[in-house]
Amino acid sequence: MNKPLPIITQIAQKMEQIEKILLEYDPTTKEAINDVFNYMIKNKGKRFRPLLMATISSIIGTKDSHLYLAAAIEFLHNATLAHDDVIDNSLMRRSRPTLNAKYGTQASVLFGDYLYTKTFKILIEYGNEKISNAFIDTVKVMSEGEITQLIESHKSELSEESYFTIIYAKTSRLIELACEIIPLLEYDSEHEITKSLKSFGRHLGYAFQIIDDIIDYQSDSNVMGKNNGDDFAEGKITLPLINLLKKANTEDREFVLELINLKSPDAYSIRSNNVLSINQLLQKYNCIEYCKKVAQQEVVKAKDALSTFSESIYKNYLIKLVDFTYERIS
Amino acid sequence: MNKPLPIITQIAQKMEQIEKILLEYDPTTKEAINDVFNYMIKNKGKRFRPLLMATISSIIGTKDSHLYLAAAIEFLHNATLAHDDVIDNSLMRRSRPTLNAKYGTQASVLFGDYLYTKTFKILIEYGNEKISNAFIDTVKVMSEGEITQLIESHKSELSEESYFTIIYAKTSRLIELACEIIPLLEYDSEHEITKSLKSFGRHLGYAFQIIDDIIDYQSDSNVMGKNNGDDFAEGKITLPLINLLKKANTEDREFVLELINLKSPDAYSIRSNNVLSINQLLQKYNCIEYCKKVAQQEVVKAKDALSTFSESIYKNYLIKLVDFTYERIS
Repeated sequence: MNKPLPIITQIAQKMEQIEKILLEYDPTTKEAINDVFNYMIKNKGKRFRPLLMATISSIIGTKDSHLYLAAAIEFLHNATLAHDDVIDNSLMRRSRPTLNAKYGTQASVLFGDYLYTKTFKILIEYGNEKISNAFIDTVKVMSEGEITQLIESHKSELSEESYFTIIYAKTSRLIELACEIIPLLEYDSEHEITKSLKSFGRHLGYAFQIIDDIIDYQSDSNVMGKNNGDDFAEGKITLPLINLLKKANTEDREFVLELINLKSPDAYSIRSNNVLSINQLLQKYNCIEYCKKVAQQEVVKAKDALSTFSESIYKNYLIKLVDFTYERIS
Repeated sequence: MNKPLPIITQIAQKMEQIEKILLEYDPTTKEAINDVFNYMIKNKGKRFRPLLMATISSIIGTKDSHLYLAAAIEFLHNATLAHDDVIDNSLMRRSRPTLNAKYGTQASVLFGDYLYTKTFKILIEYGNEKISNAFIDTVKVMSEGEITQLIESHKSELSEESYFTIIYAKTSRLIELACEIIPLLEYDSEHEITKSLKSFGRHLGYAFQIIDDIIDYQSDSNVMGKNNGDDFAEGKITLPLINLLKKANTEDREFVLELINLKSPDAYSIRSNNVLSINQLLQKYNCIEYCKKVAQQEVVKAKDALSTFSESIYKNYLIKLVDFTYERIS
């Protein structure tokens, strides 16, 4: 992990206010809920999406209600994480046991639902119809995308185009949403400011996920609480593997496909034991280099989308946030 | 199951329109989603909550948007069912495999989320702030209630008061919601019409769940796809058992508590093998009779709440729906 980015005072103040809203909005009287809530929400994470919103609001200037909407997006993000951890049966996140691991599948499902209610309560109080529709569209895209992937996941080949569709649903749509909400407080969805920031978020989201998928093949076992090549062990086909399958000679290709197509109960451990060979193949065919280039292209597109806005310390900070995301792999 | 209730033409027409909305609202282009959707939504179930709404709308008279809101409540109901089946790990519902059993835990969680988006989309399009808040409060009460129950579930004794709190969250709140939405289209939440119908729904909901809990001890293994005494086998303490624990002599009480408190992996099958003895104890202490009396009291309270309204075929039909619910145990 690279060094934390120095923060600008105005944005830091907004982040403090958002944090207060996250902890205090619509409190519950139920002790059991507070336990789960504190475990999940007080474990801060990066607050990346609220940070984007705080910065964007400083660029285009908006009323204070955006602070509540930034909390809404963090609640939504955590709702999807609670459900994702059930879906992936993940045991570790942010270097500690997931909600799932600590409180069980049931509590994770219900707590996700509970966080949806916080999200929608804020929307009714502080949003507008355009914003509510954008939130709903996001949850729809995310759940549709994941269901489709689940039910159709036993395809051993995936095009780069399908990969982009999948990561749009998985990651990009929510970051895109974070970037379009503030403009939607002031402008309609066809306004240039809305379109530019939405495009910024979409490409940043793509870069974000591609970088995550690269890191999966680079990480030491301690980083992110995941093992090197965990995606491969789980049979997940991400960009590095797509590129490998495209470039590999027949022999290498068949070796990879055979592993990916394993259906036996010990498939995970067999693939796990072959991660080293996969890493060697990724190196042989320069696949990680290729993926970095694709991520870099998305970074460039994200920055280009900001050309609408004149220079300011806030715009500059937004650009630094993009670079910060990219630097995780450099 | 008793004979179907003959339906009134005007209500039947509304139910057809609601059915059409359920199938056609905001369709998806994703084939995988349609498969899951058809499996769950086309498998009609009783449509009990939309039926209540169609009838209430005929009593108090409202604009057509109520048909969409009736679909919204059915979507919400099915979203909670999809998540409940994950939580209870249920394999059968409405006499066939649950979504969970057919498509897996992951798809059930995601499909529940997907149905939430349909619910909230309709609310934004056809609801108002009061109605949206009532929906949100319902999901909050339901998820808070279930999380609390999960985390605190290892209490082997339960008061009748706690039981009512639990079934309010589990069943009653959603039926109460179905009954307050139509009035909230026209009146505020403090209006007598809203309060009366909300109270009607709450008590009907209590009766509904108490009756379900009685049936659990009476059913043949084919009814509802559940075995006789399934709640007991799962260690769930419902009204019949609460009453038994209150009335039993020391010896009988200890026998029941010992079974309930079993924590071993074979607890389910040990309890299962003792359902006959539990049924004998329920008979010995007249517990089922007592539960029927409690359900009957809720039926009376529900009907009393309708005294605000003058006689009509629609009010009469609503009363028949209550009787129909109660007759399942007679």
